Amino acid sequence: MDEAALRLAIGDLNAAYADCIDDDRLEEWPDFFVENCRYLITDRSSHEAGLRHGIIYAASRGMLADRVMAMRGANIFEPHRYRHLVGPARIDRVADGIAEARTNFFAVRIMHNGDSQLFATGRYLDRIDVAQTPFRFIERLVILDSQKIDTLLVIPL
Amino acid sequence: MDEAALRLAIGDLNAAYADCIDDDRLEEWPDFFVENCRYLITDRSSHEAGLRHGIIYAASRGMLADRVMAMRGANIFEPHRYRHLVGPARIDRVADGIAEARTNFFAVRIMHNGDSQLFATGRYLDRIDVAQTPFRFIERLVILDSQKIDTLLVIPL
Amino acid sequence: MDEAALRLAIGDLNAAYADCIDDDRLEEWPDFFVENCRYLITDRSSHEAGLRHGIIYAASRGMLADRVMAMRGANIFEPHRYRHLVGPARIDRVADGIAEARTNFFAVRIMHNGDSQLFATGRYLDRIDVAQTPFRFIERLVILDSQKIDTLLVIPL
Repeated sequence: MDEAALRLAIGDLNAAYADCIDDDRLEEWPDFFVENCRYLITDRSSHEAGLRHGIIYAASRGMLADRVMAMRGANIFEPHRYRHLVGPARIDRVADGIAEARTNFFAVRIMHNGDSQLFATGRYLDRIDVAQTPFRFIERLVILDSQKIDTLLVIPL
Repeated sequence: MDEAALRLAIGDLNAAYADCIDDDRLEEWPDFFVENCRYLITDRSSHEAGLRHGIIYAASRGMLADRVMAMRGANIFEPHRYRHLVGPARIDRVADGIAEARTNFFAVRIMHNGDSQLFATGRYLDRIDVAQTPFRFIERLVILDSQKIDTLLVIPL
Repeated sequence: MDEAALRLAIGDLNAAYADCIDDDRLEEWPDFFVENCRYLITDRSSHEAGLRHGIIYAASRGMLADRVMAMRGANIFEPHRYRHLVGPARIDRVADGIAEARTNFFAVRIMHNGDSQLFATGRYLDRIDVAQTPFRFIERLVILDSQKIDTLLVIPL
């Protein structure tokens, strides 16, 4: 696969990921990750300080599925949706079937009553298994620009 | 035309469409549509409920032109502009010279006094005539994320 | 270099430029420009009126470097960062090794206390030296949509 095709495919992965969340098909979300994955939402300062835990953390696909189930079932929260706008993926490195990429994003949150606001901005730092299709995230770090995290962060980003 | 070229061309169509509106060249806007087109601005809930009418609706290129003329002439409203940011087009299907695509967008509204705000977010659901150039919209559904629609929705999205 | 490759390369230039600013690596920022460059931040009305000066203006790479040094040293301002989201580049013309392009952008400003807001929207109007790599800006005009410019415009856009 040449570089242009790889970019296109990673761009597709990012778009499909965002659609899955924005369309509230969260049960499909874990399938964007390999079994032994790492998913983390943190903020820039914490990330730069080398802290390895964050606001949302999962170390396996099972943990992602558990999170969705908990969200659907037990948690009580005001219904809302996101709308992502995702920039072009930048591929830093490809080796041994793993691509390292980073992508800027904006996420707007739309509340059930119609209020909407720019909720989060930041960057995805990804390690992606590109040795087989469909591509899957080995690691997706969601680095939020702001450390002022809304308490209503239940849906993944 | 291979898939990469088709994506590029649909991306160009989306960008030219947004530029036309953002640059206030609205008289050129109907030309992005085929003669027997359908243009609709609605919200996600109404769309999912299968309602076929919306906030702005046109069933032909002539109706689009009428709308622009009405806006320029009779309507009184506070002058403003938009700035679109449009994500990558996702092509769901191509058959019989028609491409079905969907594209996320954010639109900022800039008032004459300089105030600006994120005005609308949502998704374009498109059916595009790709059998001839320039490509034109057979159908463009503008699905807004929020049902809380500003009364000042006069410029198309 | 064919058109698709040129677009990809200009898209990369835009992304690298935004990353440089968003990552606060401003000392590297002048290197995105040729020696005899022109950099200007202005607003749409002023630009359309043909005014050639703006809020921030530099007529050489040295002036850009001076600006960064002044910002780092003498100026006192509340620490903040930007996050850009940049649309696809549209190439209007390529001749004599110079590409003319325009690109929409949104910039969010994140204050040190975590407050963030959509700070600026607008369009880059660029003349780019594409005769040699890396590509560099001969001219980058940052045309803001709003004339209501925040006083806190110290970091380049």
